[in-house]
Amino acid sequence: MNKGLMALDLKGEPQTLYEPIGYILGLGGKHLRPKLCLTAFGLFSDDVTDEIVYPAVALEVFHEFTLVHDDIMDRSDTRRNQPTVHVKWDENTAILSGDAMSILAYRYLALCPADKRQEVFKLFTDTAMGVCEGQRKDMDFEEQPFVTMDEYLDMVGQKTGVLLACSAAMGALLAGADEEKVKALYDFGYNTGLAFQITDDFLDTFGDPVTFGKPIGGDIALNKKSWLLVEALHRAKAAGRYAEFAALLALGEDKRQEKIEAVTGMYIDLGVKEAAEDAILECHAKAVEALEKGGLDEAQVQCMKEFAEALIHRER
Amino acid sequence: MNKGLMALDLKGEPQTLYEPIGYILGLGGKHLRPKLCLTAFGLFSDDVTDEIVYPAVALEVFHEFTLVHDDIMDRSDTRRNQPTVHVKWDENTAILSGDAMSILAYRYLALCPADKRQEVFKLFTDTAMGVCEGQRKDMDFEEQPFVTMDEYLDMVGQKTGVLLACSAAMGALLAGADEEKVKALYDFGYNTGLAFQITDDFLDTFGDPVTFGKPIGGDIALNKKSWLLVEALHRAKAAGRYAEFAALLALGEDKRQEKIEAVTGMYIDLGVKEAAEDAILECHAKAVEALEKGGLDEAQVQCMKEFAEALIHRER
Repeated sequence: MNKGLMALDLKGEPQTLYEPIGYILGLGGKHLRPKLCLTAFGLFSDDVTDEIVYPAVALEVFHEFTLVHDDIMDRSDTRRNQPTVHVKWDENTAILSGDAMSILAYRYLALCPADKRQEVFKLFTDTAMGVCEGQRKDMDFEEQPFVTMDEYLDMVGQKTGVLLACSAAMGALLAGADEEKVKALYDFGYNTGLAFQITDDFLDTFGDPVTFGKPIGGDIALNKKSWLLVEALHRAKAAGRYAEFAALLALGEDKRQEKIEAVTGMYIDLGVKEAAEDAILECHAKAVEALEKGGLDEAQVQCMKEFAEALIHRER
Repeated sequence: MNKGLMALDLKGEPQTLYEPIGYILGLGGKHLRPKLCLTAFGLFSDDVTDEIVYPAVALEVFHEFTLVHDDIMDRSDTRRNQPTVHVKWDENTAILSGDAMSILAYRYLALCPADKRQEVFKLFTDTAMGVCEGQRKDMDFEEQPFVTMDEYLDMVGQKTGVLLACSAAMGALLAGADEEKVKALYDFGYNTGLAFQITDDFLDTFGDPVTFGKPIGGDIALNKKSWLLVEALHRAKAAGRYAEFAALLALGEDKRQEKIEAVTGMYIDLGVKEAAEDAILECHAKAVEALEKGGLDEAQVQCMKEFAEALIHRER
């Protein structure tokens, strides 16, 4: 993995294009997607050659490209406690180095085994388009005061789910697993992605700021349509407390801390905190069920189950 | 071509992602790169199937993606006399729809004949990285008061040359032409690209605003390192008129019209206008020579020669 990430490409010219790429890739991410890919691969095969590692690396490079551009679009100043690319350099740099990363991902992807290339490319490209569609929906939600849970889950499924689905499925594909198994890993990855995102939303309000890598309550301050907010809006409506809740959401940046505390309190009052924990477990159960239905054996299911559990029980 | 561009992809959801893509692709561009690809293809084969048209379309989609992002980075308000995507919608939309376009290009590219896929992908991806490197160099030049002609030509070669080179070479590649012919078409495209860009720089100062699609003198107003400016800086230095020239370049936005007129006058005085016309012809001659050296027959050379001449003699 590290070998792939530190490959020659990043020492290219001009440095002004490649240095930001090296910076973001070196920021200490979890490398979740390539790890998921290689873990899924390992269920079926031991033969981890460069032809397998490089497509796995492509997933990370693509993912980090989306982070660079998302950080511009979301106006996020920090990532993993470090300045984002557009803050450390400037917006043009973040746009262009991001663009280069999306192309580099394809360069790495093309190093996969020749007989798998067509399927790998289709899976990856369909996924990449799905991520764009999901990000667009997330941005569109900012203009909608009310979002249904179905709409939210559809958006998260695209913005986060499909890339984890792709990562898991790609591992199986590269190992030559049959169609049923590839689909099982895809569904596992997708549902794990949902669990992961709901966990992320949960930690943004209820996590520990030091391990989380960014200040607590950011989503609340921005009225971001997180799982918590979407669920809370519905529960507030049902409990006749919508006006009260809307008033809290209308508080401005000058009342940031007050807003975060009040909305967090509302989440607890409305039972949203527990509901989130239940939803996470439900998605995880669906993920495991997909593996069992797909004909994976006990050891294989256990291996992926542990991978997913580590994700959900993380502190950041 | 039109069929490819109007394909189902552009009617996808969410509309907020796809509408801007349809907008920019429908803005009436010259579709130069796919036409070049198909013209080169036609030198060797008549068999124009979807497997040939779609990779040609990919070139256009990729090119227009670069325009969407370049327009953000250059802060250009208009393109082809219409508002740019980030002006018509907003910057986030331009970033994200642009990203989607770069991925769509790969979707179209993957529809090429299976036996050509590896070479086509490598050529395209190396080219795409080259375009990013060239754009970065162009942006870096803004911070450099003095740029050599070699540096300028290297930048233009990457920013513009390689994609035209790729377009021509890809046509030959798709037609199954031998390596020598593919390289000849590449070199033809590259040098035609240089001629094309110098022509573009020339028209920005000496063209007709109505047919050109944007106001005259934009490059001068921005102190953009165009071929004209780079040549003028050298000539001014040699003629002992550097300080005089630098004073003109230092004029601000409030003296925009005066600056454009004065610098244009300087270009004429220093013989830069004629030198540009010579440089364009020289690059064109190199392009044609590459075809002759590559073993193309008279009819083939003539066909490509006419294509390039139409480019250079255009008014916009």
